[in-house]
Amino acid sequence: MRDAYHEELDAIGDNLVEMARFVGSAIGRATTAMLDADLKLAEAVIAADDKVDEMHRSLENAAIALLARQQPVATDLRIVVTSLRMSADLERCGDLAQHVAKVARLRYPDSAVPRELSATILEMGQLAQRLMAKATEVLITKDVDLAMQLEQDDDEMDSLHRTLFGHLLDDRWHHGIETAVDVTLLGRYYERFADHAVSIARRMVYLVTGEHADELLSEPEATA
Amino acid sequence: MRDAYHEELDAIGDNLVEMARFVGSAIGRATTAMLDADLKLAEAVIAADDKVDEMHRSLENAAIALLARQQPVATDLRIVVTSLRMSADLERCGDLAQHVAKVARLRYPDSAVPRELSATILEMGQLAQRLMAKATEVLITKDVDLAMQLEQDDDEMDSLHRTLFGHLLDDRWHHGIETAVDVTLLGRYYERFADHAVSIARRMVYLVTGEHADELLSEPEATA
Repeated sequence: MRDAYHEELDAIGDNLVEMARFVGSAIGRATTAMLDADLKLAEAVIAADDKVDEMHRSLENAAIALLARQQPVATDLRIVVTSLRMSADLERCGDLAQHVAKVARLRYPDSAVPRELSATILEMGQLAQRLMAKATEVLITKDVDLAMQLEQDDDEMDSLHRTLFGHLLDDRWHHGIETAVDVTLLGRYYERFADHAVSIARRMVYLVTGEHADELLSEPEATA
Repeated sequence: MRDAYHEELDAIGDNLVEMARFVGSAIGRATTAMLDADLKLAEAVIAADDKVDEMHRSLENAAIALLARQQPVATDLRIVVTSLRMSADLERCGDLAQHVAKVARLRYPDSAVPRELSATILEMGQLAQRLMAKATEVLITKDVDLAMQLEQDDDEMDSLHRTLFGHLLDDRWHHGIETAVDVTLLGRYYERFADHAVSIARRMVYLVTGEHADELLSEPEATA
């Protein structure tokens, strides 16, 4: 039988899952809005970030209330503190999806992204959404193997990021500086979104195993 | 008389102050390294980020240990949770200083910044350092008026950021795409650094007054 305490803890977990689904959808829709120059969709993504901020605040309050009332120790305490951090990651992902949508709105009725880059940007957007879908799955299942997969997926994001820079720095670039600035920032937004998804997975690995993901991979480098 | 509990709480506060001083110095040194194309200084800033990460981890562990052992409630609980968030802000500031230093290293022996932009970048670097110095002061004094000043200082950062974009998008820009990409990212790093300093000040305002800084300013917009 679940007591009130574990019900509260579960509710916090459920809210994280809901936030993760929400921001995963937001980055997908922001990417579509940008590639299709869809102003209405961009506006919708921009407005929807309020909901993420609200979920974040509400989760924080629930976590603090639980700490105060139930005074968890050991693993339960770590779960609550980790949830606070994950919520902050997700809140930031909401901001990043909003930033992508704002670039779409700024350049409307044009698309911010030149045609020869749209495949790469689409891949980055889809990968970001996939990473968040996996992070969501990790939140639900606490599956460490799945969590470790996100490290590899993030390498793919780095590789896409390099492709993007390859285009930018190609002598044949003829889209001017403004577009170069847009593309640079977009690349950064997707990269950071992915970093936060990976960070959620890493926090879960640490929570479950007590070891850092990079130690398990025996790589000395941590996320910058 | 101070009991062990309040000594632990004070120690966490002291560590935050130390971290804030450290990253404030790091962003200043990273800016110098970049403008002077000083490889040795850039390397030093890059290496020093390990220390910030270590301070962050150690602060987190101390905070969690304190939560477990002392089970604070009400204001003390909020102080501990807020400290965790501030530590995350500061850890991120360390990363951003490192990113600036990495741009310096990448472009060495050149400077990443064209001569006509160096005044603006210098101002951004100095403002970032000043914002962090004020945030440090806010951590020490819990002075709400001072904390509210950071909102205005951040407007100044936005204005410098616009100046930077003005140069980039000027038809007379002749430094090519690579430099435009560098400058775009540098602008973003300083802006984010400032955001985190402001965020620390806001968290203090909320801790002391129970109200959000933006409510006190009666501005509807929060940081994205």
